[in-house]
Amino acid sequence: MDPEKLSSGTCPISRGLALVSDAWSALILRDAGWGMTQFDQFRASLGIAPNILSRRLRALTEAGVLEKRRYSERPPRDEYVLTQAGREFLPILATIGEWGRRHNGCGTPLSHLVDDETGERVKAIVVDEATGRRFEQLPVRLVMPEGFDA
Amino acid sequence: MDPEKLSSGTCPISRGLALVSDAWSALILRDAGWGMTQFDQFRASLGIAPNILSRRLRALTEAGVLEKRRYSERPPRDEYVLTQAGREFLPILATIGEWGRRHNGCGTPLSHLVDDETGERVKAIVVDEATGRRFEQLPVRLVMPEGFDA
Repeated sequence: MDPEKLSSGTCPISRGLALVSDAWSALILRDAGWGMTQFDQFRASLGIAPNILSRRLRALTEAGVLEKRRYSERPPRDEYVLTQAGREFLPILATIGEWGRRHNGCGTPLSHLVDDETGERVKAIVVDEATGRRFEQLPVRLVMPEGFDA
Repeated sequence: MDPEKLSSGTCPISRGLALVSDAWSALILRDAGWGMTQFDQFRASLGIAPNILSRRLRALTEAGVLEKRRYSERPPRDEYVLTQAGREFLPILATIGEWGRRHNGCGTPLSHLVDDETGERVKAIVVDEATGRRFEQLPVRLVMPEGFDA
């Protein structure tokens, strides 16, 4: 799907999806969140074809979610690290993980996250910032910007 | 990307992405969350080619995120409504929306959500369920299921 078209309207969800628009991109960010930086690391982790990986890394870099850094001049080698925007996508991945566990877990043993200091299981949920209420329990209404119809 | 492959490992994020794996699918769920149910409504909202929309609706139905219901026998007409799993994806879309606003807003007027009862702006954030701490501030560590390597 065309990132420019996704970024053209008034919907912020669509604008988010313009930057990370498919499963490969999301999984690359997941792996970058665990410290992977190199092409071969992503390729081995994801079992992804090199040309598809190149394309996704380029798109994520252009989207400002990854930053490409040259770490060796001879031979020329680049690495990819999360930008601030990329790091801020990681909590979203954690919510997708909890949702995936609930609805596509199939009774299989799955990985999970713990607080590295306390060792306690952590579980990502979505709440309203101001009230702390669970988002799925909120009666929400969409407000369009002035001059736009829903 | 192959949903079966995405569902084959120990990663719950990958399993979530197996069910909703691209921007079109996410936007269909967004529109279903605002009450759209019919093929022509999705098509008009998304400006999507009919064959692509058909394929996505079928995949989302097979994934258990949408339910297909026959609402007219003559002529035969189906509608698509969110399942419990589909409804539980909506808070994730709200977090993608806040992220998209922050990192791809481009100074453009965008829509936002309000509490339908109080009229107050609501903003989706991700926290740890047990402690209420912001997820991006947590030092998290990945724990693999027994017998699996990271």
